[in-house]
This record gives sequence, structure tokens and C-alpha cells, in this order.
Amino acid sequence: MIPRYSRPEMVAIWSPETKFRIWYEIEAHACDAMADLGVIPKANAEAVWKAKDVEFDVARIDEIEAVTKHDVIAFLTHLAEHVGSDEARFVHQGMTSSDVLDTCFNVQLVRASDILIADMKALLAALKKRAIEHKDTVRIGRSHGIHAEPTTMGLTFARFYAEMDRNLNRLEKARYEIATGAISGAVGTFANIDPRVEEHVCKQLGLEPEPISTQVIPRDRHAAFFAALGVVASSIENIATEIRHMQRTEVLEAEEFFSKGQKGSSAMPHKRNPVLTENLTGLARLVRGMVIPAMENVALWHERDISHSSVERNIGPDATITLDFALSRLTGVVEKLVIYPETMLENLHKFRGLVMSQRVLLALTQAGVSREDAYRLVQHNAMKVWEQGADFKTELLADPEVTAALGTEEIEEKFDLGYHTKQVDTIFSRVFKD
Amino acid sequence: MIPRYSRPEMVAIWSPETKFRIWYEIEAHACDAMADLGVIPKANAEAVWKAKDVEFDVARIDEIEAVTKHDVIAFLTHLAEHVGSDEARFVHQGMTSSDVLDTCFNVQLVRASDILIADMKALLAALKKRAIEHKDTVRIGRSHGIHAEPTTMGLTFARFYAEMDRNLNRLEKARYEIATGAISGAVGTFANIDPRVEEHVCKQLGLEPEPISTQVIPRDRHAAFFAALGVVASSIENIATEIRHMQRTEVLEAEEFFSKGQKGSSAMPHKRNPVLTENLTGLARLVRGMVIPAMENVALWHERDISHSSVERNIGPDATITLDFALSRLTGVVEKLVIYPETMLENLHKFRGLVMSQRVLLALTQAGVSREDAYRLVQHNAMKVWEQGADFKTELLADPEVTAALGTEEIEEKFDLGYHTKQVDTIFSRVFKD
Amino acid sequence: MIPRYSRPEMVAIWSPETKFRIWYEIEAHACDAMADLGVIPKANAEAVWKAKDVEFDVARIDEIEAVTKHDVIAFLTHLAEHVGSDEARFVHQGMTSSDVLDTCFNVQLVRASDILIADMKALLAALKKRAIEHKDTVRIGRSHGIHAEPTTMGLTFARFYAEMDRNLNRLEKARYEIATGAISGAVGTFANIDPRVEEHVCKQLGLEPEPISTQVIPRDRHAAFFAALGVVASSIENIATEIRHMQRTEVLEAEEFFSKGQKGSSAMPHKRNPVLTENLTGLARLVRGMVIPAMENVALWHERDISHSSVERNIGPDATITLDFALSRLTGVVEKLVIYPETMLENLHKFRGLVMSQRVLLALTQAGVSREDAYRLVQHNAMKVWEQGADFKTELLADPEVTAALGTEEIEEKFDLGYHTKQVDTIFSRVFKD
Amino acid sequence: MIPRYSRPEMVAIWSPETKFRIWYEIEAHACDAMADLGVIPKANAEAVWKAKDVEFDVARIDEIEAVTKHDVIAFLTHLAEHVGSDEARFVHQGMTSSDVLDTCFNVQLVRASDILIADMKALLAALKKRAIEHKDTVRIGRSHGIHAEPTTMGLTFARFYAEMDRNLNRLEKARYEIATGAISGAVGTFANIDPRVEEHVCKQLGLEPEPISTQVIPRDRHAAFFAALGVVASSIENIATEIRHMQRTEVLEAEEFFSKGQKGSSAMPHKRNPVLTENLTGLARLVRGMVIPAMENVALWHERDISHSSVERNIGPDATITLDFALSRLTGVVEKLVIYPETMLENLHKFRGLVMSQRVLLALTQAGVSREDAYRLVQHNAMKVWEQGADFKTELLADPEVTAALGTEEIEEKFDLGYHTKQVDTIFSRVFKD
Repeated sequence: MIPRYSRPEMVAIWSPETKFRIWYEIEAHACDAMADLGVIPKANAEAVWKAKDVEFDVARIDEIEAVTKHDVIAFLTHLAEHVGSDEARFVHQGMTSSDVLDTCFNVQLVRASDILIADMKALLAALKKRAIEHKDTVRIGRSHGIHAEPTTMGLTFARFYAEMDRNLNRLEKARYEIATGAISGAVGTFANIDPRVEEHVCKQLGLEPEPISTQVIPRDRHAAFFAALGVVASSIENIATEIRHMQRTEVLEAEEFFSKGQKGSSAMPHKRNPVLTENLTGLARLVRGMVIPAMENVALWHERDISHSSVERNIGPDATITLDFALSRLTGVVEKLVIYPETMLENLHKFRGLVMSQRVLLALTQAGVSREDAYRLVQHNAMKVWEQGADFKTELLADPEVTAALGTEEIEEKFDLGYHTKQVDTIFSRVFKD
Repeated sequence: MIPRYSRPEMVAIWSPETKFRIWYEIEAHACDAMADLGVIPKANAEAVWKAKDVEFDVARIDEIEAVTKHDVIAFLTHLAEHVGSDEARFVHQGMTSSDVLDTCFNVQLVRASDILIADMKALLAALKKRAIEHKDTVRIGRSHGIHAEPTTMGLTFARFYAEMDRNLNRLEKARYEIATGAISGAVGTFANIDPRVEEHVCKQLGLEPEPISTQVIPRDRHAAFFAALGVVASSIENIATEIRHMQRTEVLEAEEFFSKGQKGSSAMPHKRNPVLTENLTGLARLVRGMVIPAMENVALWHERDISHSSVERNIGPDATITLDFALSRLTGVVEKLVIYPETMLENLHKFRGLVMSQRVLLALTQAGVSREDAYRLVQHNAMKVWEQGADFKTELLADPEVTAALGTEEIEEKFDLGYHTKQVDTIFSRVFKD
Repeated sequence: MIPRYSRPEMVAIWSPETKFRIWYEIEAHACDAMADLGVIPKANAEAVWKAKDVEFDVARIDEIEAVTKHDVIAFLTHLAEHVGSDEARFVHQGMTSSDVLDTCFNVQLVRASDILIADMKALLAALKKRAIEHKDTVRIGRSHGIHAEPTTMGLTFARFYAEMDRNLNRLEKARYEIATGAISGAVGTFANIDPRVEEHVCKQLGLEPEPISTQVIPRDRHAAFFAALGVVASSIENIATEIRHMQRTEVLEAEEFFSKGQKGSSAMPHKRNPVLTENLTGLARLVRGMVIPAMENVALWHERDISHSSVERNIGPDATITLDFALSRLTGVVEKLVIYPETMLENLHKFRGLVMSQRVLLALTQAGVSREDAYRLVQHNAMKVWEQGADFKTELLADPEVTAALGTEEIEEKFDLGYHTKQVDTIFSRVFKD
Repeated sequence: MIPRYSRPEMVAIWSPETKFRIWYEIEAHACDAMADLGVIPKANAEAVWKAKDVEFDVARIDEIEAVTKHDVIAFLTHLAEHVGSDEARFVHQGMTSSDVLDTCFNVQLVRASDILIADMKALLAALKKRAIEHKDTVRIGRSHGIHAEPTTMGLTFARFYAEMDRNLNRLEKARYEIATGAISGAVGTFANIDPRVEEHVCKQLGLEPEPISTQVIPRDRHAAFFAALGVVASSIENIATEIRHMQRTEVLEAEEFFSKGQKGSSAMPHKRNPVLTENLTGLARLVRGMVIPAMENVALWHERDISHSSVERNIGPDATITLDFALSRLTGVVEKLVIYPETMLENLHKFRGLVMSQRVLLALTQAGVSREDAYRLVQHNAMKVWEQGADFKTELLADPEVTAALGTEEIEEKFDLGYHTKQVDTIFSRVFKD
């Protein structure tokens, strides 16, 4: 996570200030619940809320931690400085540090998820808009990088929409995975704390109580969370790769928007490089690289070890900040992508009708020519186009074996682009349900 | 995937025979739909079903492929040998190879998912049984590998149950991810084939039509599928790691079942090694290693390239076969795990009451001692136990500062194990809902 | 590892027959050394060699293992069936299974390395041949997929040569990493076996004695080995990606060789798809996916656990067989790659001289124009080419600000291709040292 | 990379100040070489050195970049503010941004390597010191977590030394991999710049000229670099795992040093958790997670795309800073590790002689008992120890079948610990060569 690839709202979730604020809320809500249960005096619970509007002093907490080498104790010590050490003496009672740390981490991940979900919705809106705009913009479809049959730019956007819509669903599922909290004590037995404290705190924070925790919330949840982010990142790479291909000099069917003051290269001023989508390709690698460490975090020893912590202190912020930035950047790229329909048509006609060979093959078969013969006829004429620059339709019309099977009009009809776009509306109605 | 770590039912899904059988069904159902639509003659569609009970000759298909270098054409050629080349001439009409390959692959993944889901349910049953059996078997809970507070073996099984129950849900979601088929032609436009053919074929095969495909079914689905398998594998490692720890000589709270004829080592006959769970740990690494390749498969070029294919030809079978084997092996380990409650109690008492220090700390605070003083008192007496082999309770009873705050009876009460297990039923009712 | 992507010589290394043959040699050589040291009778050592030409019966060994559940004991039992149980009674004395298994695994990896090294040398020869052949074949260099400045196809091959030459070095280093053997007993103390036995066996098998082993050879060696394979695989992907780009319809500067009988697609006979290099891209992902599992194998518990074994039983064969196949396939692709120099020139001129803008910019600066002004002048004229299809040289010659700084002849000279190839020999002499 | 896991010296390498300083040196040395070649005026080259002692203003450069959206141009603009725009007009002539960026990145990686190499040497010194100190401290060796045969703590340290010594070698090789620079222009043809400029700059910066570059230095080098770091990280995890096992309550053969003020847990004051080595386990996962992204960076498009950049901006600092921190932390852990030889002996005797079963087995075989019988005898008596708490030696002495083969004295001798440590000096002489 570096400032270059970060946005402030997501960064704020991971600030020490936010973290201590969440810790505070957990402790304060826990005191409320304990007071309600008669475990601690009401007055002490209420006293904790005195710090409600306090900006906790991160430097001071760090200072205390340098001595105690324990972050939660450092925070509690500092909290007592605000609340009064006598009033604060029931804070954290019966709890263990991880009750605070893990619940806080999940609150942060939930908030991060909410941003990512909003990001995704913005991206979906952009993709839908461009899909509708270019629903009928014909371009050549390519398999293996080789021209296949015509399709439309709208279908390209529509399939990215469908993919990202699945990713929206995955993000929502991922949010659900980690939207739990635990206040269950040192090994999760609630020996020193009533389960109702956990219930109250979770409810206040918008979490579900973890049905069974040890000292920690189980890490399969987080593994699933980061795995979902890895899938989303891979889909970002997918769109980025398409755009990079479209912008390459020989294709040039689209370009990333290029602002006036921007210099493409210190040496070659004519160059407009797809640097944003290349950048997104790299960011996808980064997010994906965090999936395996998150999975390696699952097998903690017994009721917990702390090996997951250093991993999560990094990938928690890094994965969410990077993905937030990437989704936002991609949305901008999609919204402003400059599309060249004329070039699309030029490219489509580059091989003089060859892309219609599938239709001709089919027509021949339907006209009673055997599969093998039809294949041979099409291949024979196609090779003349490929090797000698001939025009496919012209060659077919001049081939007596072909014309014996298909009339002139029928051959002409096979080169009609409308044939290929006739189901676009059907597909759109499948993808865009409302 | 090697025989040593494979089970026949899952292996069968990935045999060439199964693959050709599914290809055949796709083609035959497609012919039916085309005949219904009046695109091809009914007689030809019916003729295809002549091969209904044919065992396709894999060697013969390979032979043809050696010439054509194209597997689907080889299959279709072979099919025509059974059906008659004239009758077969409408088979595959308007379709592209990937319509068959991708739909088949998803059928295989769905069937594999069904086995994995059944495996998971068997594992859940085993975990639940052992959880109930050992609900009240007290053992020490450990954080950082260090004794913390008492818990029960039942809670350990219960948390694995809860984790695997989440994994069951993930597997069901994963199955849903890849339960789609596509018969949409060369670039997914349905130019040469009616979308209703796709609908019919998918319905017959228990799939949903892919809302929008290119030449292929989008690979974010498969990435999500394999990612889910990676999470499950990590949870398997989690349970395996717990058992390996329990079986280590110094702990010995459990052992993998050891059959009579089995030799643990060629040199040390007394050794009973947790080789099954160690093996599971390795298998988890293998499955996890397939997640990133699956994610790298998402960004195919334009309407498709075939780079995903070599990856999937390997990880399709490898991940599902390995995970099936691992789940089954783990179920056996759990079912037959030999548990030593006496050793659990011995271990729990290893440090003469130190594990009760949290309770004493809390009691002192509640009795009005300041947090810092309570901490100091507990730490002071604890160190005597740790360093001099003293008994914690005895020390506390002899410490006037402590007895000034807590009565003898109260101190005694702090060492009652029942205190730690009082919420086990509550937790069980959260985990085992029915 | 599947037959489709395997070559027999490498597969043979991983057959049970080869494995048992190596086990046998380890045991027999160990007996020789023990006899020389007077630890066992000479006659017994000699007797073991009676099995020298025996084809061990894999099915029989499997049968025994089904009972003993221990592979080395099963083998030893079978060996005794050949040698005589009395004569064989000193075989394996003082040794532990891993002495045999680990030393054998490394012998296999060394042999696999030898094949990979030979593969790499064949690839290097092919790359060098094509580099020399196309040393002066001018093509456009591209950064970000956008035309930059001219380069030559020979330089492209030369840089792949240099990259693969580094990979040759990495493979040799990787071979060195795992070319050790260990016969050090149950925990590596040589308590029951003399270190000279290890020395003798290793010498006979072409290995170095592992300086310090536990029960196993340390797995950092294998992690480094598989990491090297991952780097090689990534370089294969690099070359494959270049060729895939060159073959795409709009670029078409090269094509994979296309044999006569081969059908590109069941539906589009004109298509010649770069399926071999797409396949190589996928194979690279597979090999790369094995790196992390190999690294996770390093942290075995204490003197060893067996979690690494299931991983290595898979990735040992899979990674080496896949990489052998990939290197061989790539060599064939490079040797037979069809290159189109005319298309290269056409592509180079696609933007009517724009790629020379860097030279013009430099010339203007050298002629005393400020950097900012030079940039502006070049950018201004370049945009006319880009947007209006003008010719860059013509525009420059017509721009009084430009001609004020540069003479006509000088402008003409800036469009000379020879300028860009003048250092090709220098670079070749750096890359091809002999 | 977060402050908590960072050390200032390594962090400084990755500061913007350091980066701009290196950029400056590259440009200034390049000017020198160009002046020597007569390409630019000597006076201009000399003028650049006016900025020799300037602290570049990072904020100002960022400000310019915000407009130009190009970092190198921003820097050059700022440099001209110091040197004078007229004097600076030949700076960067004929170069491309990547000449600066890539050469700088490699300078940073080389410096980072130097720190890592120094770290590793410090770790080696610590390991060697502790190895010698505990050369004869007997402890039980464990395979599968189960007691096997005696070894010594010195051997444990010695094997970590040997492993880290290999890692030192790998780091040196990794440094060599990336110790190259390139000043070869837009596509690596040296069209606009003389190769001797590259040679001069590289020599001044302690790099080798890259034999053939495109616009960038080939990324297989960096992949190999980060892969090496991944192996080192895995070895760190290996040592960390050993220590975590040693410190677990039931084993307690060692503890991380525990300073006076440190609180182990907010709730359980008696706990001394191996948090440093658990932390190292997590850090290893992080570094390992960067290997695949680095490998994915190898296959750039044509002469380059910029997808690698966002990856490297993160993993360049993150991997080196994390590994530096981890190596340093591990060195501290090793140096100060508190070792408990008495507990080691207690643990060794936990199963009353069972660990000597291998010796007894061997002795029986040597005394003429068949392998099967010897196995049976040892197993029989061992089971009594295991199940009934008997003493192994006592049982053997009471077993007439055993005493028929072995005399009392011989049986006694089999339980001598010296037997197991007799080769320690031999092994030490292999590991510690000087």
C-alpha cells in the first residue's frame, strides 16, 4: 500500500485513530452490557462514555506500548488517563486482547467491504452505460488473438458487466464471511464473560456473534474474504487486458482517455500508452499475491497463535486499499474510454471476408454437401484469401463446386453483418435484468 | 493426482470415457433442440440417439486426433462411425468446440462438487459425533502453544464442525458458480445457433445457461471455484495441525488410529506417527497451489485464448481428486481418533494451577484491588510456580496480600474446572442448530 | 502431469521401476561400504548384487505394502525374496527409510535436471540460429503495445537467448542445490551408521554428502530447486507471449508452423491459432503454482515430518515433466516459427514515420531548440499524423519552425532505418560470446 | 511494509530522497560519458555536478509530476531548476525514462542485498555461537513430532547454520542477478546513445551493463531475486517453527528471552509466549506471497509494458524491508534464546528408554536374530512401556528371548547417550569449515 495507489476514505479505515476508536466502542459497549447484567457497576460503565468525543493520542499510546510491549494494555492505560483509573477499572474485565483486536479487525473489513461494494456498483453503472451506448457497434470477435466472427462492443462491455456483477455478489458474500465479532475470553469458553456481552457488542457494531471462537475468530473466514478479493482482482486484470489489446497500435479500437497536459513519454510524444490498464494489471498481481498468505493463516496452533497478525497488519490494508484504488481507476477508464468504431470496421474487413467462413461452411452442409467436402471447399478458398490477398466472397462466387450448392444470392447473404448481431438484444435482456 | 491419493468415484468423473459420454449427450440434446426448432430434420436428431448405449472407443478417437490434431473433430468423426456419416451430418451444427468442451468441463465440476459436498457432510457427521462424545472432556486450551485456560475436547470438535459447516456452504456456492453451460457459437453471439438450443441442453444437464459467454464460459467462475477449494484445503490443514500437535510425544492427548499390521517405522517400532494428518497437511499445500493458476486463467485474450486449457486439464482432476481423498481421509481420522482424557488432565495440571491465574486476577480486581496491583500479585506468585515448581493455589493461600482481598473459600473456588465449562451447552446450541 | 504434456524420457525417471532400481543401488552400495568397514560380512554385501539385473516386481511390492503400509519395508521384503532372506539380513542396517527415499528423490531430481539442462541447450541453439538468421530483419519495437522505435527480429531472439542462458545457469545451480545424498540415520547423528557409508554411496551415485541432515535432507534445497523451475517457466511464458502477439491477426509478423493435415478449428478453417504458445502460457502457470507448496515444505517439524512427501510425490514429476515438455515444445516452435519480414515493414510504416519522432526531437534539441519547444514541435506535427493520416516527414519538411532548425537532408536522414540497427553487432557480440 | 516491521537503514534505501539521488547520479554520469564521447559539451556535463550536494525537494517534484503525470520528466524539470535550464538541456539526451528507473531500481536492490547479506552473516555468527555452546547438550530428536533418537541442541543450531549458509549463497547469487544497469534507449538498440555511456554509468554505480535490454532490464532477473528471498523467508519460518515447538508448555526446552517490563498477556501473567517467532512465521508468509507476482512480471508485452511497475513499487521495499527486519529479529531471538538442558533430559527420558529401541533392534539383528523376529521382540517390549508405563531396559533384561541373544552388559550399553553424540564433531567439521 503506497500513497500513489491509495484513496483517502479507505486509508482512513486503517488509521490508528480509527482502530482506537473502534477499540473504544467495543470496550464501552461491553461495559454497558456488563452493567446491565449486574457484573459491574452502572456508574463505571457510564464513566467510560466520558471519552466519547476524545481524540485518542496515538503517540501517547505508542509511548506506553514501548514499555508494556502490549498494544491493548497500552490503549487501556491511556483510556484510564481520560476516564479516571478508578472509574476505568472494570473496563476489559473478563476479556482478552483478541476480543478487541479481532472484533475491531472485522469491523474494519466490513467497512472496507462497504466501500468495495460501492466501488463495484459504480463500475457496474459505467459498464452498463458503455454497453448500451455501444450495443450495436460491430467489431470482430477474436479467439486466440485471431479474427473469428463479428460481435459488438456492447457485448464486450456486457460480459464485463456480468462478470463484475458476479464479483459484486462475491464481495457481498465476502463481507458476510467476516461480519462477526467475538467477546469470548482467553480460549473462547466465556468462562469470565457472559455470552450476552458478546451479543450486545456485536449488535451495536453491526456484526453477528461468532458461533464459536477460540481466543480468535476462525481464520477460514478471512481466507475466504481475501480469496474473493483475488478473484475480483483477476477480473480487473481481465478488463484491463482487453483494453490494452484494443489500444495496441495495430488494433487501435480504443484508447484510454488522454488529458491535455499529460506527456506519454519523455522521448516519443506521439505515444499514447495504456498505462492505467497496465497499472491495473500489476495491481491485480499484488492483490492475488495476498491470497495464499491469507490461506496459510488458517491453520493456527491450538486455540491460536499470533502468526496471522503480521500478515493481516499488511494485507488487511494493502488488499482493500489496492482493490479500492483499482476499482475506482478502472471505473474512470471505462467511463472515459475513447472508442473508435471506424477502426473496428476496418479491422473486421482486414481479411476480406474470411471471418464469414463459418457461415459458408454451415450453408454448404445445410445444402447437402458432406461435412468433409464443405470443410475442404471453404478451406481451399480461404487459403487463397489468406495467401494471395484474394476476396473471399469473390472466390466463392467463382468456385463452381460452391455455386453448385449455393446460389449467388445466398452467398451474398452470408456476408451480412446483421446476421451476427440479431441476438444482441436477447443477450442484453439476460444480462441487464432491470 | 496420483493413485495413492485418489478415490475411484472421483477419478471416474475425469476419465476419457466420462468425458466422451458427456460430449455425446451435449451433441444429442442439441440435435433434439435443433430438430424441435425445425433447423435440422427430426430423423437426424433421432439417429444420434442410436449411439446411446455405445461405449466410445477412446483409442480410436485418439487415433483420429493424431491426424486431425483436434479432439472434438476426432470425436465427431468417431460418432459418425456409429451413427452413420449421413445421419450424423447435422451434429454439432452451428456450434463451436468450446460449446462442448466448456459445458462438459462444468458438468464434470458439478459432479465433482456433489461428491465433495457429500464428503463434507460425512466429515461434519463425524465431527458432530465426536464433539458430543467429548463435550465435557476437559483439556487445557492453548494460545501460542502455551497453556491458557481450560476448555473441552468437545469444543475443539465443535469449532472444527462450525468451520467445516462454513466450508460446506462455500462448496455449495462454488458448485453454483460453475453450474452453467454455453452453446453460443464461435464468439458467443448465437449467430449460427438459437439460444433455445443452449437452454434445452443446459436444462437436460442440470445447468443454467450462461447469461453471456464469448467462445468460452468466463473463467472468473472457475477461479472462484478453485479458490473455494483452497479455503477448504486450508481448513483441512487446520484440523490436521491440531491432531499432529495432540499426538506429539510430550502432549499425547490423542493418536491417529493404528491398525494391527501397520509398522510405524522400519527402525523404531514404538513410534506411532501422525502420518495421515501430516499427509493431509501436504495435500492442503497442493490444493492451495492450484488457486493462483486458476486466477491467472481469468484474463484470457479477447473472446478467448486457450491458455486456460492446459491448466484445467491438470487442476480440474487434481484439485477435486486430491480434495475428495483428503476429506475422506480426514473423516476416517476423526472417526477413529483415539483420545486420551487422562493425559488431558495431566497436561492441564502440568503447571500446578497457573492456568487459573486469569480467574484470580479478575477476582482480585473485583475485590477492589487495582488492576496494576492485582497484576503484580498474580505475576509474583505465578513466577514462583514457574521457576520453583511451587503450587499456585498454595502460594496464593500463603500470600497475605492475596488473602487480604480474597477468602480461602473464594481462592479454592477459582480452581474449579466447572467454571470453565459452564457455557459449553450454550456454545453447542449455537453450533449445532438442529 | 498428464500424457498429453509428457515426454517418455522424463516420465521414465519417475516410474516405480526407476525408483526401486535407485533404492536398490543405494542399499547395495551401502552394503559394500559397510562390508569394507567390517560392519557386515563381505559375503552378504556381495549377495545383494545378485539382484543387479533383476526387474523388480512393482505389483508384488505394492502387495506387500498393502499389508505393511510402509514402502521401504515392502521393498526390502521383496529384495530378500531375490537375494535370500538370510543373505539380505544386513541390508538397510543402521539406516532409516528416509536415507533411501531422500537420496533417491535427489537422484531423480538430478537426472531430471540433466534432461532440463539438455532441453535448455537445445532451445538456446534454436534461439541463436533464428537470431543470426534474422539479425537484420527490421521490425518495430513496441512499448506498452504501442509502436516505439525500430529494432530487429534478431534482437528479439537474442534477448530470449540471453534470458534462457541465464535460465541455463539457474538450472545448473538448481541441479547443484539438490545433488546431495544422506545416509545419516533416524535423526541424522550417524549413531548407527558410519559417515563413510554415506560418502561411498553418494560418490557412487554422483552426489555430494549432505553436510548435515536430520532424518531428511533439508527442504530449503528443494524449495530453491522448484523456485528456479518457476523462473524458467515464467521465461517460457515470456517468449510464448511475444509469439502470441506476433501471430494475432492485426500484427501477423509470425506464425507457429502449421502442418498440412492440421485443422485449426472445427468451424473456421482459415484460422491458424497460436495454440502451442497459448498452451505454453498455461503450462507456465502450472509450474509456477508448484513453487509456493515447495516453499511451504521447508518448515518441517523438528527433525522431520512427512508433510512434504505428498507434495513432492506430485510436484517432483509434475514440475519436471511439464517443464521438459514445455521446453521441448518451445524449441520446436522457435525452430519452425514462420516469420513474415514484409509484414514487419508494413507494420513499422503503419503510422507514416511517427516512430521516428524521438530522433527528430533529439535533433531539434541538438540544433539548439529548447527541450520544451522541441517537444511542442514534434508533438504538434505528430498529432497531425495521428489524427489526420498525414505523413510525418512531409509535415516536418513543411513546418518552418522545424526547417529553421534542421535542414531537409538532416530531416531525411532521421528516417533512415540503418540508424537503428547500427549497434546490433555490438549487442550480438555481448550476447553470443563464442 | 509497516513501521512496526521495518528498520531505518533499509527503509532509507526506498525513500524518495534516495531514489532521486540515484537518478541524479545516473544522469550526471551519463552526461560525463557523453561529454567524453564528444556528444555533448563538457561544460554542460560539468554543470550537472553543481547539484551534487543538493537535497532534492520531493514535494516540488511531486508538484511538477501532478501536472506532467510523468515522474522522470518531473525530476528533470526540477533538476534544471538547480542546474539552469540551459546548462541542463543535454541531460537525459538519447535516454528513455526506464534507463533511469530500471538502473535505479537495481541499485536499490543491490544495496538492499548488501544489507540482507550482512544480516545473514550476523545470523550465521549467532547460530554458530549457539551451536558451539550447545554442541553436547543432549536432547531428543523427533520425527513426526514423536521421539526418535537422541541428538544435540548444537546439531540443531548447526543445521540451521548450514541452511542459512546456503541462503547466504542464494542471497549473493540473487544480488548478482540484479546487479546490472541499462542505458540503451527506447527499445534497447542504442540508436540514440552510445553503449559506452551505459558502460560508464554502470561502472560508476557498481553494476554490470545488461548485455541486452529492451526498454527495460529483463524481469526474469527480478523474479529470481524475489524467489531467493522467498526461500530465505521459508528458512526463517523453519527456525521459527522449531523454537515455537520448543517453547510450547509441554516441551519447554527453550524460551524466547523475556524482558522485565514485558507483559505476556493482559489476562494471563504467567504466560511467556513465543510471539517473536510466531511473528516471524507470519512475516515469512508475506515475503513468500511476493514471489508469484514477481514471476508474473516476467512476461511483459513486446519491448515492455509497465504492469511490473506497480508490483515492484510495493514488493521492492516490502520484501526487502520485511526480510531485513525478520533476519534481524531472528538473530536477536537466537542470540538470546533461553535454553533448558535439564528439561531436554527430562523429555528425553519421558518414555523410559523407548527411544533406544532402534539400537536394540540393530543389536538383535547383528546377534543373528532375523529381521522379523528382532522387530517382533522390540515391538513387544516397547508396547509394554508405551501402554503400561514400564521401563524399556528393565523389560528387555527380563525377556529371555532378548537375553538369549544379547548379554546384560550389551543391553546396558545400548542405553548410553554417548553412542548418539559420537559423530557430532565430524558433523561440526563438515558444517563449520573454518
